[in-house]
Amino acid sequence: MEVLKQRIITDGRIEKGDILKVDSFLNHQIDIELFNEIGKEFKKLYQHHDITKILTIEASGIGIACIAAQYFHVPVVFAKKTESLNLDENTFNSKVYSYTKQKSYEIIVSKRYIQKEDRVLIIDDFLANGKAALGLRDIVIQAGASLEGIGIVIEKTFQPGGELLRQQGIRVDSLAKVKAMENGRVIFKN
Amino acid sequence: MEVLKQRIITDGRIEKGDILKVDSFLNHQIDIELFNEIGKEFKKLYQHHDITKILTIEASGIGIACIAAQYFHVPVVFAKKTESLNLDENTFNSKVYSYTKQKSYEIIVSKRYIQKEDRVLIIDDFLANGKAALGLRDIVIQAGASLEGIGIVIEKTFQPGGELLRQQGIRVDSLAKVKAMENGRVIFKN
Repeated sequence: MEVLKQRIITDGRIEKGDILKVDSFLNHQIDIELFNEIGKEFKKLYQHHDITKILTIEASGIGIACIAAQYFHVPVVFAKKTESLNLDENTFNSKVYSYTKQKSYEIIVSKRYIQKEDRVLIIDDFLANGKAALGLRDIVIQAGASLEGIGIVIEKTFQPGGELLRQQGIRVDSLAKVKAMENGRVIFKN
Repeated sequence: MEVLKQRIITDGRIEKGDILKVDSFLNHQIDIELFNEIGKEFKKLYQHHDITKILTIEASGIGIACIAAQYFHVPVVFAKKTESLNLDENTFNSKVYSYTKQKSYEIIVSKRYIQKEDRVLIIDDFLANGKAALGLRDIVIQAGASLEGIGIVIEKTFQPGGELLRQQGIRVDSLAKVKAMENGRVIFKN
């Protein structure tokens, strides 16, 4: 998605440790007009999939999921994170390991909000190690629903998440694929 | 806001301890069409305020803030929560006490994203004790920006937050004011 790549080049910052910061428009301050373009793009990619629900995870997936949902006319469900083990029998739970925080947390979705008839599109802002996406997929499986695909804004292809998911036959659409950061510049795949 | 009150009556659940659960449309599953009506209402209330930025807090404020921002054509900034003391000199920080979790956490906003020229509307899903709203207001003050008002979806008027904020001269607009839960029914103020 060209407008997104341009925005990453213009406003992304590369910080020490080759960390790409896009918090001026994606995950701290949010550019709503860009999000609308992203939402339209996801709709274009999944227009023939009769999506009934968009699933994301708190916190930074929520904005994109909500704006995108307007083009699908479906509800958003966001998984909640908790550090305590959840034993509520009314929820689907999955364990996710966070490399950033170097610890595991539980993600929770009420059984009320994903049913086996649902055709689910997972949306998230970043794909790196893929642990959050796998946890969300696990919840879709527990619900007996159909996972139609995963829509990602920025995939870091130098981390294993994308490959891991695609190897398992999951459709993953990433609107910008970052291959590397070199000399303070972002290199995209393709 | 009549459509919101009706929705609370229809789909809100009152759980033990007189807790109002609205997670079927507000803070777990999200009804995007309702959010659009809420967004339009906030715009109507603040149309003459030249709002330049919408400020909210993760996680459940983000969806409403993003949908509402479309009517204002301004960016959203969401404060991040952290349990560790943040000493980054590039951020505004404030301490918030959570009655639900019975502990304090820090909220953080990068100094990049609120400037003294900004005219800020704070948006959040719930107002109860008002601690999160006061923390966000503290950050607006630190930035030297103008706080135009606080837009809330559901205020629990039997808790002290709304009064506390209004006593300090802050404009607070709550689209539904819940006065009490009695015999499994929600009683609205006015």
